Amino acid sequence: MRISELSRSSGVPIPTIKFYLRERLLEPGHHTAPNQASYDGTHVRRLRLIHVLQDVGGMSLAGVRSVLDALARRDVPLHETLSVAHMALAHEPASLGPAFEAARTESDAWLDTLAWEIAPSSSARNDLAAALLALQQLGWTVGPGVFERYAHHADAMAEAEIAYVANAEDQEAAVEATVIGTIVFERALVALRRLAEEHHSRTQLGGTAKP
Amino acid sequence: MRISELSRSSGVPIPTIKFYLRERLLEPGHHTAPNQASYDGTHVRRLRLIHVLQDVGGMSLAGVRSVLDALARRDVPLHETLSVAHMALAHEPASLGPAFEAARTESDAWLDTLAWEIAPSSSARNDLAAALLALQQLGWTVGPGVFERYAHHADAMAEAEIAYVANAEDQEAAVEATVIGTIVFERALVALRRLAEEHHSRTQLGGTAKP
Repeated sequence: MRISELSRSSGVPIPTIKFYLRERLLEPGHHTAPNQASYDGTHVRRLRLIHVLQDVGGMSLAGVRSVLDALARRDVPLHETLSVAHMALAHEPASLGPAFEAARTESDAWLDTLAWEIAPSSSARNDLAAALLALQQLGWTVGPGVFERYAHHADAMAEAEIAYVANAEDQEAAVEATVIGTIVFERALVALRRLAEEHHSRTQLGGTAKP
Repeated sequence: MRISELSRSSGVPIPTIKFYLRERLLEPGHHTAPNQASYDGTHVRRLRLIHVLQDVGGMSLAGVRSVLDALARRDVPLHETLSVAHMALAHEPASLGPAFEAARTESDAWLDTLAWEIAPSSSARNDLAAALLALQQLGWTVGPGVFERYAHHADAMAEAEIAYVANAEDQEAAVEATVIGTIVFERALVALRRLAEEHHSRTQLGGTAKP
């Protein structure tokens, strides 16, 4: 197909496609004439993947590039590809310094008790420490054990997700699906938790005014 | 305490405190002399709340104001205060248009089957529809039922959260805690799911290279 049809199929405007081609995020088409290239389904698929990483995941262009690179390298194990995606999704902890370091030490020690196999460099460790620090700065006298229930649910969800990948016939597609799943299902989960909170606050507490 | 001590206690710089005072996000201190005001623990607490809303939740100043206003109004039921917070946290769906509307209709119909009491205007409905649309645009032939397991876990987590509020002795503090919990525990949950994914991809799939 020509670039105009690629644009229609993918929903990505032609100038954006040309930008991705220049940035080498998208493979060049097959040249059919000096000024004409032909594209196929792999290009459509790649454009949609870039869209999810950028628009749903909020990744920077550098982040998108790092994930696409990791996906393309067949010698990179899945958990490292996932780490790259998590890093590209991570936001820097708002507050560093001694208080953050103390919270990080505390939450890392608690994560050890879960006996999960996770790298010391995993960016989500910082996010967890930032959440703990925020609670402590609000005057909550809590330790990371307050996240216990969430760890239990996270564990159950992740186990099912990865089991799906492990059983997939087309492993390459499955790896891509996992990265997409990390991003898209995360958004769905956050949305569903907010909706469930609304439901339970309405039904458990009723429409009564606050005291 | 004087403004310099308020700054030390809260970790918020003096110019930022003055900005919040001008913007009326922070109550004025008690005037002890023509050019001097005295602050107390409620000011420290309020500054930390603003910090969480802005830095952990990523809310705009207008969003922070809407949440503080809702918290201050005792005639607003908790589920409406939560809705205000969710709206201030929401990002606009990246893609609107007919495809988005179709996904929204589909995910709304599925939400109906859960029999959750949620308002048609809840902003998280859009987030769920955006997640569904992203999957469909990637060529996944799935309906909103793909989110079933996440709804189950979200329901269990939210039920426990709201039960905590319902049982709290100090209802006013509990409402504030729920809003904070929405934001901080959401971040912790997302971090824990990413860590659990790393753990399960490492242990279920091993450190083996991709095929």
